[in-house]
Amino acid sequence: MTDTAPLPPLGRPDLTIATEGEFAGWRTWTRDTFESNNGPFWHRFEADGKVRCAFRVEQKHLNGLRGVHGGCFMTFADYALFAIAAHELQGPAVTVAFGCEFLDAAYEGELVEATGEVTRAGKSLIFVRGIIRSGERPLFTFSGTIKRVKRKVAPSEVGEGH
Amino acid sequence: MTDTAPLPPLGRPDLTIATEGEFAGWRTWTRDTFESNNGPFWHRFEADGKVRCAFRVEQKHLNGLRGVHGGCFMTFADYALFAIAAHELQGPAVTVAFGCEFLDAAYEGELVEATGEVTRAGKSLIFVRGIIRSGERPLFTFSGTIKRVKRKVAPSEVGEGH
Repeated sequence: MTDTAPLPPLGRPDLTIATEGEFAGWRTWTRDTFESNNGPFWHRFEADGKVRCAFRVEQKHLNGLRGVHGGCFMTFADYALFAIAAHELQGPAVTVAFGCEFLDAAYEGELVEATGEVTRAGKSLIFVRGIIRSGERPLFTFSGTIKRVKRKVAPSEVGEGH
Repeated sequence: MTDTAPLPPLGRPDLTIATEGEFAGWRTWTRDTFESNNGPFWHRFEADGKVRCAFRVEQKHLNGLRGVHGGCFMTFADYALFAIAAHELQGPAVTVAFGCEFLDAAYEGELVEATGEVTRAGKSLIFVRGIIRSGERPLFTFSGTIKRVKRKVAPSEVGEGH
């Protein structure tokens, strides 16, 4: 839906900021093949420093009941873990644990947003929790643990491994 | 990778069984748009009655570290919840809770398999747990809770809502 233009690296070489459309000014990462196929999912930093993530529900996100697929919510939440922890992450990291509850369905056309906070940032592990909403309606709560990993390949070749 | 041919409904109108290729004889569901885009994921019933789920890792499943994306593992596990609970499900159901641990990475070309069991099948809720492996190597453990839901539309129109 949105054309994007690559910008200079801001922590990750694949960080991209939308320059037009509904998500103009929002950021995304483009190296994740699985994520790129299912997104783009977007995030931005609010004036109060908090991170907001969002995507607009399309047909490709749905299940057989015409609601957003559970796997899609979980993929978006996994993306959100890394966005919410962006201030703490200087290198690649991987998700090591994740938990969630499905509170309500969302349907095609809805704007789905995630917010949350880092509950602890340690030397190795970063703990994050968050909530996904459509407007004021809670859809999904989640918590996850991210582990920092050492680079195995050149920085120019690596992105985050969600 | 595998051509599929529709067969008569076996519990769900969108159940499809592969007739050739690596997954000949394995089953999948085709109504889930999100799942279809990211799969196909397959399942079959073993001689001992247990359910085995599988997919072959392709580039579209990967993250920036060239391993299977966390969201892909979670989507496959969400699929596996419904496959493992297939004997208990006579109608649509949704995931209400899910938890997992990421133990190891899997890479392009690997055959990734999930097995598990129903730990409790109640009137409303079905509890499932499982493990994802590549060969003998454990990759991912998960547990999930599925809730049976009443049909809102004609049976011919509905699939499972993962």
